[in-house]
Amino acid sequence: MNRGDGRKADQLRKIKITPDYIKYAEGSCLIELGNTRIICTASVEESVPNFLKNTGTGWVTAEYGLLPRSCKSRIPRGKNSGRTHEIQRLLGRSLRVVTDLKKIGERTIWLDCDVIQADGGTRTTSITGSFIALSFALHRLKQQKIIDKIPVKDFVAATSVGISGKELLLDLTYEEDYKTDVDMNIVMTGSGEFIEIQGTAEKKTFNKEQMDGLIVLARKGIEELVEIQRSYLKDIL
Amino acid sequence: MNRGDGRKADQLRKIKITPDYIKYAEGSCLIELGNTRIICTASVEESVPNFLKNTGTGWVTAEYGLLPRSCKSRIPRGKNSGRTHEIQRLLGRSLRVVTDLKKIGERTIWLDCDVIQADGGTRTTSITGSFIALSFALHRLKQQKIIDKIPVKDFVAATSVGISGKELLLDLTYEEDYKTDVDMNIVMTGSGEFIEIQGTAEKKTFNKEQMDGLIVLARKGIEELVEIQRSYLKDIL
Amino acid sequence: MNRGDGRKADQLRKIKITPDYIKYAEGSCLIELGNTRIICTASVEESVPNFLKNTGTGWVTAEYGLLPRSCKSRIPRGKNSGRTHEIQRLLGRSLRVVTDLKKIGERTIWLDCDVIQADGGTRTTSITGSFIALSFALHRLKQQKIIDKIPVKDFVAATSVGISGKELLLDLTYEEDYKTDVDMNIVMTGSGEFIEIQGTAEKKTFNKEQMDGLIVLARKGIEELVEIQRSYLKDIL
Amino acid sequence: MNRGDGRKADQLRKIKITPDYIKYAEGSCLIELGNTRIICTASVEESVPNFLKNTGTGWVTAEYGLLPRSCKSRIPRGKNSGRTHEIQRLLGRSLRVVTDLKKIGERTIWLDCDVIQADGGTRTTSITGSFIALSFALHRLKQQKIIDKIPVKDFVAATSVGISGKELLLDLTYEEDYKTDVDMNIVMTGSGEFIEIQGTAEKKTFNKEQMDGLIVLARKGIEELVEIQRSYLKDIL
Amino acid sequence: MNRGDGRKADQLRKIKITPDYIKYAEGSCLIELGNTRIICTASVEESVPNFLKNTGTGWVTAEYGLLPRSCKSRIPRGKNSGRTHEIQRLLGRSLRVVTDLKKIGERTIWLDCDVIQADGGTRTTSITGSFIALSFALHRLKQQKIIDKIPVKDFVAATSVGISGKELLLDLTYEEDYKTDVDMNIVMTGSGEFIEIQGTAEKKTFNKEQMDGLIVLARKGIEELVEIQRSYLKDIL
Amino acid sequence: MNRGDGRKADQLRKIKITPDYIKYAEGSCLIELGNTRIICTASVEESVPNFLKNTGTGWVTAEYGLLPRSCKSRIPRGKNSGRTHEIQRLLGRSLRVVTDLKKIGERTIWLDCDVIQADGGTRTTSITGSFIALSFALHRLKQQKIIDKIPVKDFVAATSVGISGKELLLDLTYEEDYKTDVDMNIVMTGSGEFIEIQGTAEKKTFNKEQMDGLIVLARKGIEELVEIQRSYLKDIL
Repeated sequence: MNRGDGRKADQLRKIKITPDYIKYAEGSCLIELGNTRIICTASVEESVPNFLKNTGTGWVTAEYGLLPRSCKSRIPRGKNSGRTHEIQRLLGRSLRVVTDLKKIGERTIWLDCDVIQADGGTRTTSITGSFIALSFALHRLKQQKIIDKIPVKDFVAATSVGISGKELLLDLTYEEDYKTDVDMNIVMTGSGEFIEIQGTAEKKTFNKEQMDGLIVLARKGIEELVEIQRSYLKDIL
Repeated sequence: MNRGDGRKADQLRKIKITPDYIKYAEGSCLIELGNTRIICTASVEESVPNFLKNTGTGWVTAEYGLLPRSCKSRIPRGKNSGRTHEIQRLLGRSLRVVTDLKKIGERTIWLDCDVIQADGGTRTTSITGSFIALSFALHRLKQQKIIDKIPVKDFVAATSVGISGKELLLDLTYEEDYKTDVDMNIVMTGSGEFIEIQGTAEKKTFNKEQMDGLIVLARKGIEELVEIQRSYLKDIL
Repeated sequence: MNRGDGRKADQLRKIKITPDYIKYAEGSCLIELGNTRIICTASVEESVPNFLKNTGTGWVTAEYGLLPRSCKSRIPRGKNSGRTHEIQRLLGRSLRVVTDLKKIGERTIWLDCDVIQADGGTRTTSITGSFIALSFALHRLKQQKIIDKIPVKDFVAATSVGISGKELLLDLTYEEDYKTDVDMNIVMTGSGEFIEIQGTAEKKTFNKEQMDGLIVLARKGIEELVEIQRSYLKDIL
Repeated sequence: MNRGDGRKADQLRKIKITPDYIKYAEGSCLIELGNTRIICTASVEESVPNFLKNTGTGWVTAEYGLLPRSCKSRIPRGKNSGRTHEIQRLLGRSLRVVTDLKKIGERTIWLDCDVIQADGGTRTTSITGSFIALSFALHRLKQQKIIDKIPVKDFVAATSVGISGKELLLDLTYEEDYKTDVDMNIVMTGSGEFIEIQGTAEKKTFNKEQMDGLIVLARKGIEELVEIQRSYLKDIL
Repeated sequence: MNRGDGRKADQLRKIKITPDYIKYAEGSCLIELGNTRIICTASVEESVPNFLKNTGTGWVTAEYGLLPRSCKSRIPRGKNSGRTHEIQRLLGRSLRVVTDLKKIGERTIWLDCDVIQADGGTRTTSITGSFIALSFALHRLKQQKIIDKIPVKDFVAATSVGISGKELLLDLTYEEDYKTDVDMNIVMTGSGEFIEIQGTAEKKTFNKEQMDGLIVLARKGIEELVEIQRSYLKDIL
Repeated sequence: MNRGDGRKADQLRKIKITPDYIKYAEGSCLIELGNTRIICTASVEESVPNFLKNTGTGWVTAEYGLLPRSCKSRIPRGKNSGRTHEIQRLLGRSLRVVTDLKKIGERTIWLDCDVIQADGGTRTTSITGSFIALSFALHRLKQQKIIDKIPVKDFVAATSVGISGKELLLDLTYEEDYKTDVDMNIVMTGSGEFIEIQGTAEKKTFNKEQMDGLIVLARKGIEELVEIQRSYLKDIL
């Protein structure tokens, strides 16, 4: 497939991160991956869901939204689709795996990922950006002496891969995602372990060999993303 | 792990299918997998979603519900969680991949999977049972000369697998699911291709070798499930 | 009227009860009356509505649902109609009249009646089945020494009767219900007293003589239903 | 029981009707029964529910509401309870029985019963008042030559009766309703036939003899109510 | 403009107030301004919103509703429009400015303004009537020795003015409001200070001179309304 | 009042406009006023609300949202407050007054104003930014030869003014807004006519002289804002 933006099959789009993008949030960034642009904020709330009350343990949860005109057609406000719920659950799970919840005390970190402009990869880019926002927020808690170290066990980043005909592609744009037969979202740690793998045959089924190829490709992309995260967080993690 | 029900690590629970369980539905079955019991119905509606109008193409979609007392604690009615949406999307996608939507004409097949009793594996068992209900409903359309052959391209069945400590387990009960570090739901066709793979590190991350082991295990279970489906559908598919 | 199923005008449909149908519920049964099939569960919750807090008194309440394909046409999920509310109120009232609420302590018994297949008489059959589920749940509380006797004052069962032209009919199927001019739901105790009478002129008004005839017929049916309940509950009530 | 307002057991409260209370409605009245005050309006809409389209037949339906401060305690706005749904269904059914729906053409008459002040008997008084509003609206359609006669087959009015200890009472106030063991709402035609009977054992069950006594009492009250309706409608019906 | 009801440009419609219209409310009136008729009630609730808990300060808030047939066309029930929210916020703010919230203690006064018949000016008339209901409710608190004086700092009343072509009009009916180019709602105190001014160019923009003219007109109307309020409240304020 | 940011009483905050901020929208900008940052998009939809069908006339409407962490405390998603409705109505009205709706044909322009960061003046800044987005969208329609000229009759911009003690202030920050006794939002055209004036006594009432002073101040600010708009739109309007 001739990628519209001239990339090679195994190449990520250009990534740009603006840390501390929102002045009120405890942690935040604007993350841009090609035309995809997402505001990620981390907010600290001094309470936990009921099932954690009086356990000394904290919680990390995420919400995801699309601005009405982040997409080609305007999306009416307040139509919270099943897709949104699914993404929110994925975000929350992925960030919790790398956080030592017992060490953040009885508080909740809310991650809000709001898509300003969507061109594919919004859920994976939300994970990559949220990790930065989360780290900043935890750093602030440490600066305020509320916690004594940043309770993050590993980096986490995510990317999408897909199969188009016989070709395996890294980091799909909206148009590529629409055309591929199979797409897969992979969330990995900085040390190369899996947190989540979600592969879906949208048009054609896939076999084990293809799956293995996709995983190699995703791992390459995630390693690059973690390097970029590392450059923004080198002073605090 | 000593499985509570005496099964080996690579053994499915006992499965029982009662075809035509609901007299009004175009296709239906009661599927029981150990203590998990689900009513699957397929309903034919003579209309399609807007995006398919005047295309000659049909649609297959699914809904999933839990009776209030299908679980250990009563679930208040009408609390449609994000989990429900996620499952419904998975069910719909999985069944659509094996259906030739162009051949069913401008109609929608609604698959309703209602869990009467839940003991793990409700989403995967819903897929396995829905395929039977769907086949019956399409068979009825064929008998009524509305379509001339059953437009199903392959079988589809699903199972869950998981990692508990170092052990890989097939077909998790609710209790096992709760205890495992990693769980994975896999949907495959009768010819052994993947439709969907969803692996989640609930407590600990996992590596490629573990993932490969889980896939081998899942494939074994799905092959057995497809054999059982085949025995109920041998006269029509 | 020639009843489709060959019954006499004063004859109930065949009734079948499967006790303890749901393993998680404190009390449950599957009740089948002809083609009508309902799962009734009783769940014990250790709290009461606000107006009963700190009174030492308990509560019995009921919810009712129809599976999407329990009826001839599929009912979209989550459309909780006014009819549902009305039925739930009737179920709750009927069961509360025979329960000594002060003796169950500050807890709520939730009765869930979920219709798997609907062929008329779902609200009355829900009452008849709920009484069994409730008795089982209270029996369990007694076995757990939480209460010292089962605080049920009398049996309760219900049936529908109707007028079709000049004929009075017992236990209407869906089709009969649709055709009758008047239908009446009657809830009575084991000792033959009324708990509820709801008579409705759907097409034609009715007079006192007709009403008296319907009551005689309903009483006959309810006596038979109570005998059946008694056979399942003889060891505990 | 010593009735708080000095009435005899078989006596209605004072009734007052203000016809044409709302200038925009096609038909309306303010009906006052003791302290109970209800605005009843009938609105003509030139469309019918889907199931009646292209049948030439019309529809009559009703909605019921309570102003927030119509009751002793303020009711938060927008809490549409199950009770409301039940009342609306009763009102609609009762008025439809006396209306020849085929003769009103493909239009819907909406009856809105809004309780300004509630002191018992709001659902029965809504029926009595709605009949007047409906008749006025149909009269206007006749004046506009849209229909050629008023398609009302009989009068309809309603009252409540109850059992307090051993005493049978007509037309219960809120306080009386609260104290009675059994209450019954009865809807009858001008010619003394039943449209609806709803008897409920709130605290104690009741027997056939008591039921018969209640019916005699209700009939007496309804006959008086119909006389009052007749005086307002004598020029048009 | 020839006003349909023969009024001069600077003349209010006829106003009529029925105090204590609802027997259950702590304070209430029916206010009629021409064909506009509104029931205003004030209810005392012994709690405050969260942000006022443990401050010793009370709250005054308002809700506004339209009966379905208060308008020319029937408004479906439960459609709470943005307009409603806007009016409720205006009512609450206006009444709070003249109330010494610290002196009413930790309780909330709910003002409910329910429009029985709407012919323009419903939001301004709701303010004028609410002030009376509020004063009665506070008077009752004083009589019950819960507060020792009525903590009202000034009267408050409101009216609408508008520009039609070159003419400035006081107190617009629905039809006039619809035809004007600019309309303005003004809320003032008894001493002639502004509480709120909301001027809107519906069709044509307006200049400073026109605005000044509207304010003169509104002030005249509000002075008359305050005089009427004063006559009803002279014994208590 | 010593303004926190060193501004004079009659000085606007620094304003920055990024045109075409969102690539999918027909018109868009990012508008920044001090710390307040809003994304304004204009979307063209080829349909109109029902009341405009078959009239040849178009519609302009607006929606407004706050990102969860645009404010000091996180706002839970989906809580659409009355304030939001009020702002949306103001935005829509203000933009419609300067648009010749008949000239845009039967289409709707949706203006979405999403607040990324809120520091006072979000509703007025939304108006100022929306006018730019609207103009760009209409320019695109003209370029596509769908309309032959841009049907905008005048510029529109808005600002807030307030009274703090004796001082009149232009362009309030969140903190200033919170502290002022009176605040006023004013919407004016490029030619200095009023579209909307909304003045509210939050804590203290105000008199005519103060109101006149506020209007002078607002006019000065709006003239500056229109100049800035003009610089971005000089090639198209």
